[in-house]
Amino acid sequence: MQTEAEFKDFILNGHLHYIPHISIDCAIFGYHEQQLKLLLIKHRNIDGWCLPGGYIKRTEKLVEAANRNVKERTGVDNLFLQQFKTFGDPDRIQFNKFDEKKWLEAVGIDSWEGNWLFNQTISVGFYAITDFSETVLQTDITTAECAWFDINALPKLEYDHDEMVSDALHTMRVHLYHYPIGLNMLPEKFTLSEIHALYETLLDKKLDISNFPKKLIALGLLKKLDEKRSIGAHRSPHLYSFDKEKYELALKEGLVLS
Amino acid sequence: MQTEAEFKDFILNGHLHYIPHISIDCAIFGYHEQQLKLLLIKHRNIDGWCLPGGYIKRTEKLVEAANRNVKERTGVDNLFLQQFKTFGDPDRIQFNKFDEKKWLEAVGIDSWEGNWLFNQTISVGFYAITDFSETVLQTDITTAECAWFDINALPKLEYDHDEMVSDALHTMRVHLYHYPIGLNMLPEKFTLSEIHALYETLLDKKLDISNFPKKLIALGLLKKLDEKRSIGAHRSPHLYSFDKEKYELALKEGLVLS
Repeated sequence: MQTEAEFKDFILNGHLHYIPHISIDCAIFGYHEQQLKLLLIKHRNIDGWCLPGGYIKRTEKLVEAANRNVKERTGVDNLFLQQFKTFGDPDRIQFNKFDEKKWLEAVGIDSWEGNWLFNQTISVGFYAITDFSETVLQTDITTAECAWFDINALPKLEYDHDEMVSDALHTMRVHLYHYPIGLNMLPEKFTLSEIHALYETLLDKKLDISNFPKKLIALGLLKKLDEKRSIGAHRSPHLYSFDKEKYELALKEGLVLS
Repeated sequence: MQTEAEFKDFILNGHLHYIPHISIDCAIFGYHEQQLKLLLIKHRNIDGWCLPGGYIKRTEKLVEAANRNVKERTGVDNLFLQQFKTFGDPDRIQFNKFDEKKWLEAVGIDSWEGNWLFNQTISVGFYAITDFSETVLQTDITTAECAWFDINALPKLEYDHDEMVSDALHTMRVHLYHYPIGLNMLPEKFTLSEIHALYETLLDKKLDISNFPKKLIALGLLKKLDEKRSIGAHRSPHLYSFDKEKYELALKEGLVLS
């Protein structure tokens, strides 16, 4: 959505193209060299920060709507996307009344009586993880700002999005024990220290150095390469890469790393 | 919903009380003495079996709607309820067109033009686990039948409910590694063999006998009682019970048993 005309049409006639009463919100985590960040946006005409999200087109599957939203903000397509929780509470109607009124004013409409956006909304939460250094953040006509924040220095978020972030982190951390992770977050060839650091950063705790790498090797997800990296006089650790076929299969089926 | 008049009002005016476009479906698992079952229902006027479910009242939180549905079918209140996935797909509209037409006919209405039930529906899946021997199954005006089926002998289900059951089982099994389980599924005092059998049955695989019990004891969730059960000449295993305070806390916060 790029023009004022499209924005006005979305507000007036969006229900013809989108399912009312239900939205998605995306917690997009960004990892790079032991830093974990979260993507936040500011909606047009609204002061506070919140998660990016939107409505679901009547022709879309849920995950397609999430993928579209993530791509629109980051430029990255086909990220690993997982649902973490769906949020529904009669109180959620209050948030919308406030915000969408500002939107109606923004496009010069006096009354929101009967407008499709004035509904109690249930929101499906998805999380994604990517390498934040590879993203190109983009705003549009509904999004005033878009930025990465360190996970340990988040501002207070609008609506129930603080709770969403906490639930997204919790589910992402549970999933680390059941799904492989790291593709597109590590270099093509990496050391065991680098993948260990990825797990420590995502879990936000110290781990036994052999913990995850050992399990990944045992499951055939990590391949030891006939190649070393020289990082000092007497230090040249072996390099590893993912077995992409096994990785994709494990992603589909889930597995118990524990 | 018990009377024909209430049923007709639900079909004609349900949108005043329930949120359109979104439903819940519940995979209610039943455990008892190494058997795992699933609760299935037949909707009024519809032949096949499916998961119990329904719509969300405008005054309810999502989990309250799930709890109400589970209670209506099983008579059991406040079960451990967890979301497993939300299902949204443009194809889901087809299911509804077919079934709800039968419902309209059943209450003697000719046309469903503009009816609130004729919508693409997104459904939030919850799972619950209980002791099936403690439940009292109940039908109502929308539910023709209600029965427990062995998890390994399920009939082919209506709609996308086969996929839902598969996803519910998968998520339930992942959760076994992160949340405590067993309260209301085991006797008040139980042996380590009994809780071991519970885990083996739910995971559908053989486990090292000390695997889960050892972790539960280490986390303080299991208390060894000063009491034994006599089960034979030379066999009198110690009895255990849950530390309910720690159990509730672990349920809230989640923990890594692995």
